[in-house]
Amino acid sequence: MNIILVDSTEVAGNELRLTDIRAEHIVKVLKSDVGETVRVGIVDGGKGTGTIRSMVKKRPFSVELELNISNCSTEIPPLDLILALPRPIMLKRILTQVTALGVGTIHLIHANRVEKSFWNAGILDENEYRMHLLHGLEQAVDTRVPEVHIHRKFKPFIEDYFSDQVQEYGVCILAHPSGKTRLSEVVQGAKGRIALAIGPEGGWVDYEVEQFKKKDFCSCTIGERILKVDTAVIALHSRISALLELP
Amino acid sequence: MNIILVDSTEVAGNELRLTDIRAEHIVKVLKSDVGETVRVGIVDGGKGTGTIRSMVKKRPFSVELELNISNCSTEIPPLDLILALPRPIMLKRILTQVTALGVGTIHLIHANRVEKSFWNAGILDENEYRMHLLHGLEQAVDTRVPEVHIHRKFKPFIEDYFSDQVQEYGVCILAHPSGKTRLSEVVQGAKGRIALAIGPEGGWVDYEVEQFKKKDFCSCTIGERILKVDTAVIALHSRISALLELP
Repeated sequence: MNIILVDSTEVAGNELRLTDIRAEHIVKVLKSDVGETVRVGIVDGGKGTGTIRSMVKKRPFSVELELNISNCSTEIPPLDLILALPRPIMLKRILTQVTALGVGTIHLIHANRVEKSFWNAGILDENEYRMHLLHGLEQAVDTRVPEVHIHRKFKPFIEDYFSDQVQEYGVCILAHPSGKTRLSEVVQGAKGRIALAIGPEGGWVDYEVEQFKKKDFCSCTIGERILKVDTAVIALHSRISALLELP
Repeated sequence: MNIILVDSTEVAGNELRLTDIRAEHIVKVLKSDVGETVRVGIVDGGKGTGTIRSMVKKRPFSVELELNISNCSTEIPPLDLILALPRPIMLKRILTQVTALGVGTIHLIHANRVEKSFWNAGILDENEYRMHLLHGLEQAVDTRVPEVHIHRKFKPFIEDYFSDQVQEYGVCILAHPSGKTRLSEVVQGAKGRIALAIGPEGGWVDYEVEQFKKKDFCSCTIGERILKVDTAVIALHSRISALLELP
């Protein structure tokens, strides 16, 4: 935890009392003492500091803080991710890592090569996946929880749902090994938000590629090396970020 | 396995007989049959195909292949990684992922904030870490095993060992949150190989930063978000690769 995240409902005035793993973290990892400050953020709110007013350094741990939070809102990251539902254990890591990198919205969608059983995974429950998103925010010192939307059928997602969304984007990218366009050609100097679609292990099938192309997705490759989905998500996010930041 | 990797000593003429997990993979995952071909590569050698001449489709699995390997050597990736020894479980994943992305040499080094106990990990044994490198090659359809060098002390590494190496590099980058330079300023249009140094959780200490700077490392940041080491390795590798590929 590089920032202690709290829900706005936990704060009374500018006072906060922690008794869970966050209190334990302040005692055992940060080794903070009364009078010292720690970084605190309100989930989907501001960031600032908490000054420790009192604490119990043994179980049950307890820390009382006086907060000083500024309300400047964080900008929404420019990239939204459309991800064919990966294996649950991989999804957990991806959610944390892509939240740490910064993402606006994550769409988890079905695709032909997604194993049907993945749709029964507990991680698709909001209480479960939210925990992994918060881990990413705690790592990156951010407070804005990415939106997550779950689409259990491909066709309604691409034909109906995304048709209404597409005008929000300046650039739509389909990651595809046989794509003919280089990322830099579509990203450098791009205006507006970016949608990035990444397929399942084994890739998109032809029908899916055609559907994305109908919605003006540009089929892009980052070379001949075949990457696992978790590596590909970070690699593509990072390459796009580097290109967006160019003068 | 997107390619079946074999040691040159396993091949007799152009014939290869597999009886281990690779045979099982051809039978159960690839579901290949006699007369069909699979991708085969020689470790630190060429790539090509193997045509299945006979096979046993149940335990003990066995596949006999006739190889057709071309000897074109793969180029050494332009980036070498200097990595403060991470937690062993994280190191395994990093070795596989960075090998899949493509890396020349990996230097694992000590740093002040590396936990001493990490140096006792089994993963530092060549037989252990080589397995994870091969997984990365199997994923990315590559055959060149990255070099791995282990440096248990920081000072001899930076003062002696690296002094002899430094002229091999066109650019040396130190990833550091308070770095003042943007990656694009040093990477875009760079000539020669690139050395990338990534610190432990908690970062480099001031002494280490000073030592790297003495060796002309440029202290670079990729923004204010704090990343875990495994995410940072892929993110930095990918950003550098994107910038190197710019016209």
